[in-house]
Amino acid sequence: MTLPDRVEIVEVGLRDGLQIESEFVPTDTKVDILHALIDAGVRHFEATSFVSPRAVPQMRDAIDVLAGVRKQPGVVLSALAPNRKGVERALESEADEVVVFLSATESHNLKNLNRPIEQSLRDIEEIAELLKDKPLKRKGAIAVAFGCPFEGDVDLGTIKTIFNRFVDLGFNAVTLGDTTGMATPKLVRQTVEALRAEAPDMKISLHFHNTRGIGLVNVVEGLRAGITSYESSLAGLGGCPFAPGATGNICTEDLVYLLDEMGIDSGIDLQALIRIAQRLEGVVGRRLPGQLMKAGPRLNLHDVHAATAAVG
Amino acid sequence: MTLPDRVEIVEVGLRDGLQIESEFVPTDTKVDILHALIDAGVRHFEATSFVSPRAVPQMRDAIDVLAGVRKQPGVVLSALAPNRKGVERALESEADEVVVFLSATESHNLKNLNRPIEQSLRDIEEIAELLKDKPLKRKGAIAVAFGCPFEGDVDLGTIKTIFNRFVDLGFNAVTLGDTTGMATPKLVRQTVEALRAEAPDMKISLHFHNTRGIGLVNVVEGLRAGITSYESSLAGLGGCPFAPGATGNICTEDLVYLLDEMGIDSGIDLQALIRIAQRLEGVVGRRLPGQLMKAGPRLNLHDVHAATAAVG
Repeated sequence: MTLPDRVEIVEVGLRDGLQIESEFVPTDTKVDILHALIDAGVRHFEATSFVSPRAVPQMRDAIDVLAGVRKQPGVVLSALAPNRKGVERALESEADEVVVFLSATESHNLKNLNRPIEQSLRDIEEIAELLKDKPLKRKGAIAVAFGCPFEGDVDLGTIKTIFNRFVDLGFNAVTLGDTTGMATPKLVRQTVEALRAEAPDMKISLHFHNTRGIGLVNVVEGLRAGITSYESSLAGLGGCPFAPGATGNICTEDLVYLLDEMGIDSGIDLQALIRIAQRLEGVVGRRLPGQLMKAGPRLNLHDVHAATAAVG
Repeated sequence: MTLPDRVEIVEVGLRDGLQIESEFVPTDTKVDILHALIDAGVRHFEATSFVSPRAVPQMRDAIDVLAGVRKQPGVVLSALAPNRKGVERALESEADEVVVFLSATESHNLKNLNRPIEQSLRDIEEIAELLKDKPLKRKGAIAVAFGCPFEGDVDLGTIKTIFNRFVDLGFNAVTLGDTTGMATPKLVRQTVEALRAEAPDMKISLHFHNTRGIGLVNVVEGLRAGITSYESSLAGLGGCPFAPGATGNICTEDLVYLLDEMGIDSGIDLQALIRIAQRLEGVVGRRLPGQLMKAGPRLNLHDVHAATAAVG
């Protein structure tokens, strides 16, 4: 088995991480963090979303965040859009990519998008029409792809149907969202292999949460299955609406550390990332789940004379 | 590649986890937790240590903890002993197993045991003599086996020397301690394979910390290398003396969840374990790092009507 030499990390902290923060983070701060991350080598961001400002006030500055980031070749700014209106706003923005999504179960799709899956699939056809001949890249996201908090295990047939619709409509990539951290190594392997069989050339991205502590284990299984694109959140910012105190997205700097130690290049400077993660703790005013920013990389050594003994 | 069907988990929370707690946990509470864990299916415990009560007051009730646990066939109560005196106390106790240890680097061994490795190796010969014809099982532990906080990478030659000394002295098992969470998948593979080549029949146990977020990734690498014994701590109790806020030992219930989802039998009831972990948070009076006790197993479903929507 060969692991990939290089992977792409999509930083989703400013969208999936920040959306649960009740206190509004100033637009300038968001843009500063994006610039710092670009300087650290991050090249792909889910930077914001075009959702209702009433539903998610934190994202009300979507247009300004995208406009504030300096243009740089190779940097992709992505924006999430839940519907046609969101996509229309994305088209008027500086976004390089739009992410449209639906859920793999009826109850989650109803809760999240207020319509049955079949209707969401029709919406996406309409959106694809709207995006035709536009310069934006388009990514499809399948939420609760590894398990639904309301229905449990999801039907692989439904995942295939949604995936194939994205393929048929000419999307550039599909993300499998582990929305509430229900992925397991077996499910990752099984789902990726099933979708590969449907459309071998479609780019698949994996979006894991660490809600049950095994997010990075699932990444390694993804790597072994040949997947080279992962979505993660700086400092592990985010959470789980169903589990107070549980973690949300896997943590970007912990992921970069793991990749570094596995000899897999992400193009990202870990030490720089750690400094930005520490700064993010200051922005939100509390400790965040990321481990590397507390412990440092393994070869950050300590002075033997300053240390206290730890028996065993 | 085949994964093992069954693994042994050694619960070390009452020793490695609890030793950093400054507030003394009453002996009865420790015994109650051990009984609850036995009822949940745990069969092997590092239950206490025979260290100086002045150095680690939390362990001053070692004799009473071991005496308080009801005898049950198949349950192994292990006690850590840093020196001859500790082993003598263990011999007078109800311990089924004694764990003696030294470090893989000179500076850590000096800090921890106040002597060079060579002297510790001679001490262990003396201890082996003392244990001859005694009913106690004996386990050797190699601290900082995957990296030293003072010296960085460790010399595999030193690890082999220590390992072979345990082999030659008739120890039943050797534990590789990732004392400050510096293990990586590559190091796990490399170290296990090197030691297997030295003594293929010696039982190897892996003791990982989650200080840098990849403890369970290292377990999976251990499983792939054929290792069937892992040491972990209930609720992830413990910490890292070098990194305030960082986690310590990998969390037992998160490990059991992962094993369950990989189809690997640990003989432990996850739901029961979660209840004991939640109780342990009450005992120490703060949130602990374990994720499963916050989020529940993946198929603990939620009521769609009670939930708020999470966009994306």
